Amino acid sequence: MSDDAVRRPRVGHIQFLNCLPIYWGLMRSGALLDVDLYKDTPDRLNAALVAGDLDIGPISLVEYLRNADDLLLLPNLAVGAADRVLSVNIVSTRPLGELDGRPVALGSTSRTGVLLGQMVLSDRYHVEPEYFRCPPDLSQMLLEADAGVLIGDPALRALYEAPALGLEVVDLAEAWREWTGLPMVFAVWAVRKDFAAANPGVVKDVHEAFQRSRDLCLAELDTVAESAARWEPFSAETLATYFRALDFSLGEEQIAGLREFARRAAERGEAPALPVDGPLFAQV
Amino acid sequence: MSDDAVRRPRVGHIQFLNCLPIYWGLMRSGALLDVDLYKDTPDRLNAALVAGDLDIGPISLVEYLRNADDLLLLPNLAVGAADRVLSVNIVSTRPLGELDGRPVALGSTSRTGVLLGQMVLSDRYHVEPEYFRCPPDLSQMLLEADAGVLIGDPALRALYEAPALGLEVVDLAEAWREWTGLPMVFAVWAVRKDFAAANPGVVKDVHEAFQRSRDLCLAELDTVAESAARWEPFSAETLATYFRALDFSLGEEQIAGLREFARRAAERGEAPALPVDGPLFAQV
Repeated sequence: MSDDAVRRPRVGHIQFLNCLPIYWGLMRSGALLDVDLYKDTPDRLNAALVAGDLDIGPISLVEYLRNADDLLLLPNLAVGAADRVLSVNIVSTRPLGELDGRPVALGSTSRTGVLLGQMVLSDRYHVEPEYFRCPPDLSQMLLEADAGVLIGDPALRALYEAPALGLEVVDLAEAWREWTGLPMVFAVWAVRKDFAAANPGVVKDVHEAFQRSRDLCLAELDTVAESAARWEPFSAETLATYFRALDFSLGEEQIAGLREFARRAAERGEAPALPVDGPLFAQV
Repeated sequence: MSDDAVRRPRVGHIQFLNCLPIYWGLMRSGALLDVDLYKDTPDRLNAALVAGDLDIGPISLVEYLRNADDLLLLPNLAVGAADRVLSVNIVSTRPLGELDGRPVALGSTSRTGVLLGQMVLSDRYHVEPEYFRCPPDLSQMLLEADAGVLIGDPALRALYEAPALGLEVVDLAEAWREWTGLPMVFAVWAVRKDFAAANPGVVKDVHEAFQRSRDLCLAELDTVAESAARWEPFSAETLATYFRALDFSLGEEQIAGLREFARRAAERGEAPALPVDGPLFAQV
């Protein structure tokens, strides 16, 4: 018997389809055994990581920017898209250029997506709608609003349902790419600075496990899609297309996209500016 | 997009080391993607399955016997031991034959283990102690009791700590084997009858997934032990020895052990008698 056992790191996991490939990888690689995994919605995971109830986890980009003093990024891991993302959308009953002064609902589970939606509407479409927060349900949103910003599984569903309903759908990652020429990063993985300082070996291991899991799931995307289609309201083909639209990397181009978003968020007073050498990464 | 998606079955998982090999198998085989897994202590999982908050899950043998009208067993899956189990123990400050009229603590997380302990004490050692329920902590138990019945990780720890403390440890599965000549079954997997009737395909799939997971983990037991040793207060060797002591099968011999335990439990008024053709199994 040994007394040197340490507790498993408390790691967050987004229980949306966009992170299912990561879960698949963590599972298949055996890495799940080495973490206490907390599955929840992005907004609750944001709060838990900021509050110190999680050690490591995905965090919405804008929430990372607001709490960058307490956090370090895990290198080379993110949820973003080089072009279309399919699951971060403005769904509108009228052309976006006609939303000035009109009510627009912002899905309550989203932080970065709804801010990106506001940026796109004001800076690209030159409209200033009246925004209000709303549960992420399209029908409920459109009862009181002319348009809604949706993320995640409801947004993906809306994308396939909207044309039949005569609704306009704008993919916000595609809009961002056309506008800035850069990929969009919606979420990053961060570790609390205090945890990283006390447990550098664990952080390195978790990071390696995530890298392995990401690579493994990319190699098995069609299998992931087929397995998930059994339980989700999407076909295996739709899921595979979606998983392939997602970009789980955080290379130079993605970091440039992250910095550009940070600059625009700071300009709007939504987050402090990134330091010149930011974002800061964990040493792994 | 399809509308025929169904919800994942709600499946319980015992968060003790004894079920870690099963978890490993569910993970490595990819089966975790097809269940909503609820991890908890055995007593809480018992209650959840009986209350209908779980569809399928492990259940303490005696709790199964008490609720057999609502449940069907999954064939060929159990937690038991052919001989020593290592983690279901009476730990005593004096020889067991001297416990008559003495206070004996029963670990509150155990149902079958504590009943087996009482059977062994009264029928093999011919003593009738004064029993009381107590949290499963050896030090706390021995503050007020001369002996305690412990299961799970605390029992396994006690096994290795007891000799140095001058305590006697009786392995209750070994005692059962010596006494009845049969293997002991501590927990079985059951499905609620109503769920099985409505979802026969899902039950068949979950059962197959568990069989695959069990076979896969048995083939990788040393790897499981090595991975787990990092986070548990036991060496990889101790864990591998423990995993090999466990018997996850439910064949003819194990069913005979189950029936013998059921007979003795009914004799003591602890559970209704099994029907002549019992236990009833799910059709898978």
